Amino acid sequence: MPRYALKVEYHGAPFAGWQRQKEQPSVQAAIETALARLEPREHKIAAAGRTDAGVHALAQVAHCDMDRDWDPFRLSEALNYHLRPQPVAILDCARVADDWHARFSALERRYHFRILQRRAPPAHLAGLVWQVKQRLDVARMQEGAARLLGRHDFTTFRSTICQADSPVKTLDRLDVTGTEGPWGPEIHFDVRARSFLHNQVRSFVGTLERVGAGAWDADDVTAALEARDRAACGPVCPPQGLYLAGVGYPEDPFASGAEPA
Amino acid sequence: MPRYALKVEYHGAPFAGWQRQKEQPSVQAAIETALARLEPREHKIAAAGRTDAGVHALAQVAHCDMDRDWDPFRLSEALNYHLRPQPVAILDCARVADDWHARFSALERRYHFRILQRRAPPAHLAGLVWQVKQRLDVARMQEGAARLLGRHDFTTFRSTICQADSPVKTLDRLDVTGTEGPWGPEIHFDVRARSFLHNQVRSFVGTLERVGAGAWDADDVTAALEARDRAACGPVCPPQGLYLAGVGYPEDPFASGAEPA
Repeated sequence: MPRYALKVEYHGAPFAGWQRQKEQPSVQAAIETALARLEPREHKIAAAGRTDAGVHALAQVAHCDMDRDWDPFRLSEALNYHLRPQPVAILDCARVADDWHARFSALERRYHFRILQRRAPPAHLAGLVWQVKQRLDVARMQEGAARLLGRHDFTTFRSTICQADSPVKTLDRLDVTGTEGPWGPEIHFDVRARSFLHNQVRSFVGTLERVGAGAWDADDVTAALEARDRAACGPVCPPQGLYLAGVGYPEDPFASGAEPA
Repeated sequence: MPRYALKVEYHGAPFAGWQRQKEQPSVQAAIETALARLEPREHKIAAAGRTDAGVHALAQVAHCDMDRDWDPFRLSEALNYHLRPQPVAILDCARVADDWHARFSALERRYHFRILQRRAPPAHLAGLVWQVKQRLDVARMQEGAARLLGRHDFTTFRSTICQADSPVKTLDRLDVTGTEGPWGPEIHFDVRARSFLHNQVRSFVGTLERVGAGAWDADDVTAALEARDRAACGPVCPPQGLYLAGVGYPEDPFASGAEPA
């Protein structure tokens, strides 16, 4: 059975998350249903990151096994046709080795988080940003973020329902950037690690928002980290500003592209 | 009666356009209805640009007359409260002179147009961009755009239902920029003039798309302009990539801001 890697963009709002669930719409079920329109049988796909309800993806990566030998470009076009009108799009598709695995072959996950800083409700960005009305100090947030980098026991920043074997992870990057967009001032977070604990990014962003607002300082972030206690975490921020932005593999499966031949 | 200038952001999709119409939702009616919640009577507001159905605004400017002496910040907050959940937001509010007029005092209108260049349907940007699947050559489009700058008879680029007295207008700016965003390659248009004809920006963008695709060249743009004939125009592009981005006045009415006192 030929295996294909899929690069997937989706809007998180209408879904209970990536993972298939009983009687609730999921991105996984949407794609598996589209696959069944191409090859009628049960399909089971795996993804690099199992995003929560409301969380978006710019470039989730999944893999599927097909009976027929599909041209990757044709497969992506056929899936996009059957995914309509759901906000799920196959951005790229590539043939991969039979033992390549979207989740287990991944070496890095990249997340992006977007805060819109203003008082008026967003007309175009509703559901795509976390709106914060209070002024946040980006330099303070950067100072707080630096305290989280590296290898730590991240129990404080891990949901109580997290199923990871160990709370020890290495955070490779947590960049906080202030930017002026057409909708007003924004604060962007770019986060990278080999893997993440459940709710880790939203726990970071919620905690750093408190630092930006002046309620916490960088030493409080260090104290929260060292407490290794979920109760020491700042408020977990809402999902709608969070995007799974990319997945790193030993070799980029999409390097050659699935453009029309 | 104290007069107030309003800076307004809106999503064009649910509206038949800015202007109040019988039995169809309009942005004007949404704001007038919200004003009537604050001062129960008929309200009549005027705006700098009457955008069409589906066209967005980042910073439309309107004015309203009130009976009471409102603090501008409180007026904007009260309007935003009553506008919910419609995608219309008052970004700023300022007291202006009694003879200041959102439309007649304006010296410049600025429009922004956004093309998303890719094959897969957009999950987050649906309704916010014009998706073009074909590769467009930005340098060719810039060359074509340059032919439209300055003072011309723009009959070719004017809708047949345009009510302007004269088709002669001065186009001050038509910048075409290629940019790489999180959703893929985009092409942005920034257009400025004292005033515009009906469908002028969408006629420009639709024509320049033909130039970018290689079907037209810059000389064809000049020939179309010189024809002074609506039939010589390229296809008018759809409204959902178009944003009224700003309005210029002799003095910026919002210079001091309506932040909380």
